[in-house]
Amino acid sequence: MPRVDLEPDRWMDHPGLARETHERMAAEGILLASFDAHGKLNPMTIGWGVFGWIWGRPIFTVLVRPSRYTYGCMERTGDFTVNVQPADRTDAATLCGTVSGRDQDKMGELGLTLLPSSKVKSPGIAECPIVFECQVVHRNDVQPPELAADIKKEYYPDGDFHRIYFGLILNVSVDRAFLDGL
Amino acid sequence: MPRVDLEPDRWMDHPGLARETHERMAAEGILLASFDAHGKLNPMTIGWGVFGWIWGRPIFTVLVRPSRYTYGCMERTGDFTVNVQPADRTDAATLCGTVSGRDQDKMGELGLTLLPSSKVKSPGIAECPIVFECQVVHRNDVQPPELAADIKKEYYPDGDFHRIYFGLILNVSVDRAFLDGL
Repeated sequence: MPRVDLEPDRWMDHPGLARETHERMAAEGILLASFDAHGKLNPMTIGWGVFGWIWGRPIFTVLVRPSRYTYGCMERTGDFTVNVQPADRTDAATLCGTVSGRDQDKMGELGLTLLPSSKVKSPGIAECPIVFECQVVHRNDVQPPELAADIKKEYYPDGDFHRIYFGLILNVSVDRAFLDGL
Repeated sequence: MPRVDLEPDRWMDHPGLARETHERMAAEGILLASFDAHGKLNPMTIGWGVFGWIWGRPIFTVLVRPSRYTYGCMERTGDFTVNVQPADRTDAATLCGTVSGRDQDKMGELGLTLLPSSKVKSPGIAECPIVFECQVVHRNDVQPPELAADIKKEYYPDGDFHRIYFGLILNVSVDRAFLDGL
């Protein structure tokens, strides 16, 4: 599948890409991926993410709980990819949202292949029509005293408050045929 | 100008709205507005913002420096509106990015009128085709040790690190004709 690299400053000009990313995220989830200590790519399903502009730069912000295997990967590698799957493929989101990369080789089990990144260390997933390459440029932790009570109760009954990673988008790799079809 | 309220969970289905918001933000800026202590709406130009999904909810995240008049308004009111202006009107962004609401009545000087909000206290701006009504549900402060060195140097030579406000989108009010023309 031939791919095209979009200018990170201009990718939001393609309205279909932002919509597809928001939609897949809200439906079955998209895949946050980063290298583990063994050089294995670990994909994790995420249903949350915000993107736009901060510090005059295109930013994709994601959240990871400290208990997750991905957390150690992100801390170590300092970069990640966000991978938007095709709408008709939901098995990856299901598996990557239920098992841990500590125990299983999720890429292998799903038959997914690596897409080498051009700007960050962590690769993307070749089967995903949209891949964002992101460098961590800032981190925050969710602050319990600053969080609305209903959200705290719903998502943090046992603590494990998310770390918030602000990713500078350095490249957006899109499947050519997918882009033409938007 | 007749307006329509969109479901906050579904507004991202309209790809033109996300694109317009990203575009105007990156070009002349959009208007972050909240009530001051005198019940006067204070609009401030912002060129940064990220939106999408967090905590299973539609979220619009904005950044405000503690030195800004808007900061006190946001802290006091706990809500805000994000107002996307028409592409052909840039005077508001210019004025609201250069003068402080401490000294001047920006709404009056610009001939802008209030748009009463349906879900939050702070009103929107009637002349803006897209208005997001947001309730603050979480706050973080930019953490200097966690920030990339080049960004720190470029934007924070004198400190004054931004506070990051996570706004739950409770309503999206859109000009009917504008929406139809997307």
